Amino acid sequence: MTETAHQNALDLIARGADEILKRDELAARLALGRPLRIKAGFDPTAPDLHIGHTVLLNKMRQFQDLGHTVIFLIGDFTGMIGDPSGKSATRKPLTREDVDANALTYSDQVFKVLDRERTELRFNSEWFGEMGAADMIRLAGQLTVARMLERDDFAKRYGAQQPIAIHEFLYPLVQGYDSVALKADVELGGTDQKFNLLMGRGLQEHFGQPPQVVLTMPLLEGLDGVNKMSKSLGNYIGIAEPAIDIVNKTMKVGDALMWKWIELLSFDIGAAEAGALRADVDGGALNPRDVKLRLARELATRFHDAAAAETAIAGWHAAVTGQGDTSLLPLQDVAVPAEGLRIAALLTAAGITASNSEASRKLKERAVKVDGEVVEDAGATFAPGFEGVLQVGKRNFARVRLIAAG
Amino acid sequence: MTETAHQNALDLIARGADEILKRDELAARLALGRPLRIKAGFDPTAPDLHIGHTVLLNKMRQFQDLGHTVIFLIGDFTGMIGDPSGKSATRKPLTREDVDANALTYSDQVFKVLDRERTELRFNSEWFGEMGAADMIRLAGQLTVARMLERDDFAKRYGAQQPIAIHEFLYPLVQGYDSVALKADVELGGTDQKFNLLMGRGLQEHFGQPPQVVLTMPLLEGLDGVNKMSKSLGNYIGIAEPAIDIVNKTMKVGDALMWKWIELLSFDIGAAEAGALRADVDGGALNPRDVKLRLARELATRFHDAAAAETAIAGWHAAVTGQGDTSLLPLQDVAVPAEGLRIAALLTAAGITASNSEASRKLKERAVKVDGEVVEDAGATFAPGFEGVLQVGKRNFARVRLIAAG
Repeated sequence: MTETAHQNALDLIARGADEILKRDELAARLALGRPLRIKAGFDPTAPDLHIGHTVLLNKMRQFQDLGHTVIFLIGDFTGMIGDPSGKSATRKPLTREDVDANALTYSDQVFKVLDRERTELRFNSEWFGEMGAADMIRLAGQLTVARMLERDDFAKRYGAQQPIAIHEFLYPLVQGYDSVALKADVELGGTDQKFNLLMGRGLQEHFGQPPQVVLTMPLLEGLDGVNKMSKSLGNYIGIAEPAIDIVNKTMKVGDALMWKWIELLSFDIGAAEAGALRADVDGGALNPRDVKLRLARELATRFHDAAAAETAIAGWHAAVTGQGDTSLLPLQDVAVPAEGLRIAALLTAAGITASNSEASRKLKERAVKVDGEVVEDAGATFAPGFEGVLQVGKRNFARVRLIAAG
Repeated sequence: MTETAHQNALDLIARGADEILKRDELAARLALGRPLRIKAGFDPTAPDLHIGHTVLLNKMRQFQDLGHTVIFLIGDFTGMIGDPSGKSATRKPLTREDVDANALTYSDQVFKVLDRERTELRFNSEWFGEMGAADMIRLAGQLTVARMLERDDFAKRYGAQQPIAIHEFLYPLVQGYDSVALKADVELGGTDQKFNLLMGRGLQEHFGQPPQVVLTMPLLEGLDGVNKMSKSLGNYIGIAEPAIDIVNKTMKVGDALMWKWIELLSFDIGAAEAGALRADVDGGALNPRDVKLRLARELATRFHDAAAAETAIAGWHAAVTGQGDTSLLPLQDVAVPAEGLRIAALLTAAGITASNSEASRKLKERAVKVDGEVVEDAGATFAPGFEGVLQVGKRNFARVRLIAAG
C-alpha cells in the first residue's frame, strides 16, 4: 500500500468516529499488511435492528472493504445466565434455542451491510461455557471495586443508593476477556461502551497480547433530532421496514441532522463530497431536499434493492406533490363498521384530517378527492372492501383498504 | 432428651459464645433429635495452631460430645487460586500437594481436641473445582456491592482509598456457598467472621435450605492480656510446644485474664465451678496460682498426656521454688566459644543475670549455684559439651547445654 492509500484508509476509518484509542496504534496495525481482526459485540436478546445500529455495521463494512476480518460477536454467555439477582423479570435466561433463533434473525439483517465472506459469526459461550469458577475468580482479580465504580452508570446508581448486584461487575470483565479469546486487533462500539472496550485492552495486556485499538462511534440521533434513536422512543427507522417507509421517514429528517446522518450512514456520499454539498446548500445553490433524496434512495437500496428504492421515491413524490403514481403509497388498513363510514369520518379515521369538522370544511372547499375525483357529498359512505386513495388538499394522501371492525 | 438435658446442652453451647443467631433456631435444631451438621472453616495456609485457635475447636468438641457431627472444612479452593490481582506476593497459589500436606499437619493437631469419629474432614474444592464460570456469576448475583461494602474491613479500605480487587467480593460468597454444599445446620467462627457466616444463611435460603444457625466465639487474648493471640505478636502458646512451655506460659497469664481463658479453654472447670472458684479467689480463700495450675495441667494434658503434664508442673515448681527435680526444666542450648565462657558471662548468656557485673556481684554474694553446688570462683570456665543446671538466688534457673558457637 502506498502512503496515500494508507492515509486514505485511516481517513475512511476515522470518519464519523467519536474517539480512536490510540490513533498511532491503529496506524501501526494497518501497516502490518495482514487482515486485522475487528471485533464488535452484540446483544443476544434484541435482534430487531434499526438504522442506528447500522452506524457500527457500516464501520465494520469499511474495515472489510479494506481487506480486514470482522468478528460479529453475540454475547450469548451472559444472556443465557439472565439476571441472577432476580431484580429484573424481563431479563430471563435465554435458552440455546433462543440464542440460535436470534442469531439467524441477526444474519438476515446484518448481511445487508456486512460482507458475508469477511465476517466471523461467533458466540462467547464458546470459551466461557468451558471456563471454570476458578478462572472467573482470577479474572475478577484483574480490576478493583473503585475502578468499576468509576464507570458512569455504576457511579450514578451507587450514588443514588440503587442496588448493584455483584455479578454486574463481572460482565465488563467478561466482555473484556472476549477480546483476549478472539485476539482482537480493534474493537468497535458506541460511545456508551468505552469503559468496556478499554477493559479489553487491560486484559489483553495481562494475558500477554498487544492491547486492541478502541474505536467508538457516536449514537445516532433519531427522527426527532434530539434523542438517540431507539425503538422505545418511536424515533427510528427499522431496517426491515418497507422501502416506502424508509424513504418517507428519511425525508422528514431535519436539514441539520441530515449532515450527521450522511456522515454516519452514507457510503455513497464521501466526506469530501458531503462538504461540497453542504457548501452548495448553505449558499442556496442546492435544495437540501435533493440531498436528502439521495440519502433516502441509498438507504432504501441498501435494505431492499434499487427497484424498490425507485418505487418508494415515486410514492413519496406522489404523496408530497399530488402527482405521479399514488398506487405506490403504503396501503393502510382502516377498520370501519359493517354499514360503512361517511366520508368525513373516514378522512379523520385515516389520519389526514384532524377532526370531522375539519373534514366537513374541506368537503365544502372542494379540497377532498377519492381516487383523484372531487367528492362534495357529505353523505358519501364507504364500506368494508373499498380500497382507494383519499386526498385532502395537495399533499395529504392516504391509500386505504377498509376492513370490518370488530 | 429431657427438658433439663436440653437446657444443659443449650447452656454448654452458649458458654463463652459472643453471639448466637438465632438462639431460638438453635434450640429448635437441637430438639430435632438427629445429629446436626456443625461447620467450621479453616485457612489452608496456616496449619500451625496455637491455643487461640482451639477456642473454636473446643466449641466443636462440645457439639461432638452432644452427639453432633463436626465438619472441619479446609478452604483450599481459594487458596489454590492465590491472589489473582498480583497485589500480594505472599499469597502465592497453593498446589494440591501443599494442601494435602497442610491437611495432614492440621490432622496431627486438631484431633488433640476433636473426636475423630465425629469429624468430617472436607475441602471446598470438592464442589468449587467442578463449578463453572456461569454458576459463579449466578452466585455473584445474590449480593449487592453496597451490602458487601458494609463489611467492616471493606468499608475501611474503600474509605481509605485502598484497592479492593473484585475477586475479594467473591470470597465471602464462596464461603457462604460452602454452607449450602454441606447443608450446614450451624456454622462456628470468630467474631471477625460474622459477615461471612451470615452470608451462608442468605445463600442457604436462596437455595431452599433452612438457614444455618451462626455462633461466634470471641478471639482469645494472648499472654500479654491485651492483644488477640497471634503468632506474629509472639503472645501465644503453640499447641505443639513442649508441655513445660505450655505450663510456664500459662502460669504467667494475669489473674484477670485467667477467668476468660478458663471460660474459653477449659472443659474440666465448668461454668458453675468457675464461678465458685472466682468467689473463693476474690474472698482471699484461694490463691489464684492454684487455679492457674489446674488450667495449666489441663492444657498440658490435652496437648501431650497426663504424665508429661505432671513432669512439666514439677519442672515449673522447681524453677519457681528452687525445690524439686530441676532435671525437668526445659533444656536450653547456649552457644559458647571453643575455649569456653567464664561463669559470669555464662549466666548472662543463659538469661538469668542481666549483665556480667550483676553476675559478678551474685558470685560474691555466694548466690550462684551450678548443679546445686555454690560457685565462687569468677575464673570458673565452662566449655562446649557441658550440660547442667545454673541457678541464681532461689528462683532463677536455667538448664543449659553448651554448644560450640559458629
